Amino acid sequence: MLVQKYKDMLSAKSVIRQLSEFATARGAEIGYENVFDYSLGNPSVPTPREVTDAMVRMLREEDPMTLHGYSPSLGIPSVRKAIADYLKERTGLPYGMEHIFMASGAAGALAHAFRLVAEPGDEILTFAPFFPEYHPYVDLSGAVLKVVPPDTESFQIHFEAFERMLSPKTMAVLINTPNNPSGVVYSADTLRKLADVLKRRSEEYGHIIYLISDEPYREIVFTGVDSPWVSSFYDNTILCYSYSKSLSLPGERIGYVAVNPACGDAVDMIQMCGQISRGIGHNCPPSLIQLTVAEVQGKTADLSVYEINRDILYKELTELGFTCVKPGGTFYIFPKAPEEDAKAFCQKALRYDLVLVPGDTFGCPGYFRMAYCIDTEKVKRSLPALRKFVKEEYSM
Amino acid sequence: MLVQKYKDMLSAKSVIRQLSEFATARGAEIGYENVFDYSLGNPSVPTPREVTDAMVRMLREEDPMTLHGYSPSLGIPSVRKAIADYLKERTGLPYGMEHIFMASGAAGALAHAFRLVAEPGDEILTFAPFFPEYHPYVDLSGAVLKVVPPDTESFQIHFEAFERMLSPKTMAVLINTPNNPSGVVYSADTLRKLADVLKRRSEEYGHIIYLISDEPYREIVFTGVDSPWVSSFYDNTILCYSYSKSLSLPGERIGYVAVNPACGDAVDMIQMCGQISRGIGHNCPPSLIQLTVAEVQGKTADLSVYEINRDILYKELTELGFTCVKPGGTFYIFPKAPEEDAKAFCQKALRYDLVLVPGDTFGCPGYFRMAYCIDTEKVKRSLPALRKFVKEEYSM
Repeated sequence: MLVQKYKDMLSAKSVIRQLSEFATARGAEIGYENVFDYSLGNPSVPTPREVTDAMVRMLREEDPMTLHGYSPSLGIPSVRKAIADYLKERTGLPYGMEHIFMASGAAGALAHAFRLVAEPGDEILTFAPFFPEYHPYVDLSGAVLKVVPPDTESFQIHFEAFERMLSPKTMAVLINTPNNPSGVVYSADTLRKLADVLKRRSEEYGHIIYLISDEPYREIVFTGVDSPWVSSFYDNTILCYSYSKSLSLPGERIGYVAVNPACGDAVDMIQMCGQISRGIGHNCPPSLIQLTVAEVQGKTADLSVYEINRDILYKELTELGFTCVKPGGTFYIFPKAPEEDAKAFCQKALRYDLVLVPGDTFGCPGYFRMAYCIDTEKVKRSLPALRKFVKEEYSM
Repeated sequence: MLVQKYKDMLSAKSVIRQLSEFATARGAEIGYENVFDYSLGNPSVPTPREVTDAMVRMLREEDPMTLHGYSPSLGIPSVRKAIADYLKERTGLPYGMEHIFMASGAAGALAHAFRLVAEPGDEILTFAPFFPEYHPYVDLSGAVLKVVPPDTESFQIHFEAFERMLSPKTMAVLINTPNNPSGVVYSADTLRKLADVLKRRSEEYGHIIYLISDEPYREIVFTGVDSPWVSSFYDNTILCYSYSKSLSLPGERIGYVAVNPACGDAVDMIQMCGQISRGIGHNCPPSLIQLTVAEVQGKTADLSVYEINRDILYKELTELGFTCVKPGGTFYIFPKAPEEDAKAFCQKALRYDLVLVPGDTFGCPGYFRMAYCIDTEKVKRSLPALRKFVKEEYSM
């Protein structure tokens, strides 16, 4: 018998995928360049030259037996060391390779993090607006994802709601800063308060509440924005990182888990990740890709286009009268829709070939997401359509 | 709180790993070339030139945005199609891309297969001797692995024991042919009988018992050995394949799930794999590696060394008086130890710098495994040590 829960999932259609399919179909009609597709969070700049060069060099010069050989289940030691050295230099925290576990992208890293700290039935709290895949990631691990309602003024943390939702069943809190979909970066003040709450509640409940920090957008932070190192605020932090966005390598599935060295069980936790891998078919990320990222620590793709696009869109949206928190990073912006039903708003936008994603998808109805990882030229060309849309439909 | 079951696993030492660590340590003393390390099943021949060339060409010529872009969760369509075309041509079964799910190696493929058909508490049966990682793979999915005792005469299936162990809780049967550790290839007769039993019991229990066929050694079959296509014998077969051994790419984590087109739910099952992925952090294998294997369908590394080594070892072992089923494929041989306690036998062998793995590890006490994926020259140099060992210790 096929397992029903997975079969049932087949009929649930992803809103983002449907919108993206609309964009593709509409593109076939009028040319994709004329569809203002803000639906997908796919990097729009190529991986840096150094990545390609490193791969070609290794393929040409290294022994293929070593290059393509089995990686230990925790990752290739030299790669783990290169990452630990980089993190240590960058943060001042005493990272060593024993604190690093190589994972297949952020999804792989998170799959390990959840299983490290939550048994079936345990609760993991996250904050709206949030990346919708957190639901299958957590739910299918057996744990329960609880979503704290948003502070829509700032898209920082709604602490009052958070305190109400914490319970002895809370084993971890999951944050994502810089945030998809809001583009907001959590401030030092937010992180300090968060750490205080977690320390107090851990003590009260007699067990550690871990902080799982999902940071694929860590390197996409705009001029003048302070982006504090989450792990510095709270010892029991499990950092989940992916190179998908910073190096524009989303298809190569490479990232890591880094447990704060100050966390008492850090070394055991990394070893435990190797055991968790055996149960979920993970094993290790591809060796060629592991070895590649080790060679380009601290490098990124040219991410400047995202800030340029942010500037254009933020200016236009606020001038048009949208309520909108200014993104500090990522390639997303999350304005308030001019009618209560953001789904209806996004549906109407399609008539103007504007593909926007309703905030309902991110646990935040009434708002909508624009993923501006597209060419600046296209962003500019979309502005007249945006103006026409809100003028005709909302008299804005 | 950290999840205890993973913490507990840290203290369990893998026998193969311990032996491999011994080999490394001893190698540091006397030179690794003097340690006859038969412990690890790592390919000993390089990936074919075509693999490296395909990768370099794509890195140099293809658009990096496409090359390293997100793969759909079922895999890149052109890759799935290339594999389906190859399977169709090779087997005559009507495979289409809708029957193929790209997975991160056999471990990734199996992780999906188990979750497709078994809920927590359901039973999956396999046959001793078996790959020991099946235990964590199945157990940590929540299902229960039951091991049918071996037919040590032939290392085909012990049907009497099998029939006794089947029950309404059996949701799948897991086979591995060519087999690790025995090197035996299941005959057409075995597969026919197996299919008959599965059909009969499926009907009796009122639910399909799926056949999960783990085939990473499919291409390593020796001269004159018939290696029938498992899926041809039973409609409800889920084939799990990895390129690790055939293309000597174990570190690159690439393989697939192929559901027999004759299986009624084949297309849904592939779609369900995409849902299972979301829960286990799998997403998809790296795009560069997917695109590479699509270009070299039907190619293999030069696998001839394994047959040469098999010939040398089988001749020597039988001449020395060992009871031994002649391997039809893989790079393993699984002779009977000359004393009941194979662990003691393997321990004594270490004094002669022979690193052998006791059959207990594979659910088959009294036997031992030699992984002859090493240079032929080293195999030859190991023979005097082997002779000396069995003469001195067992008067063979």
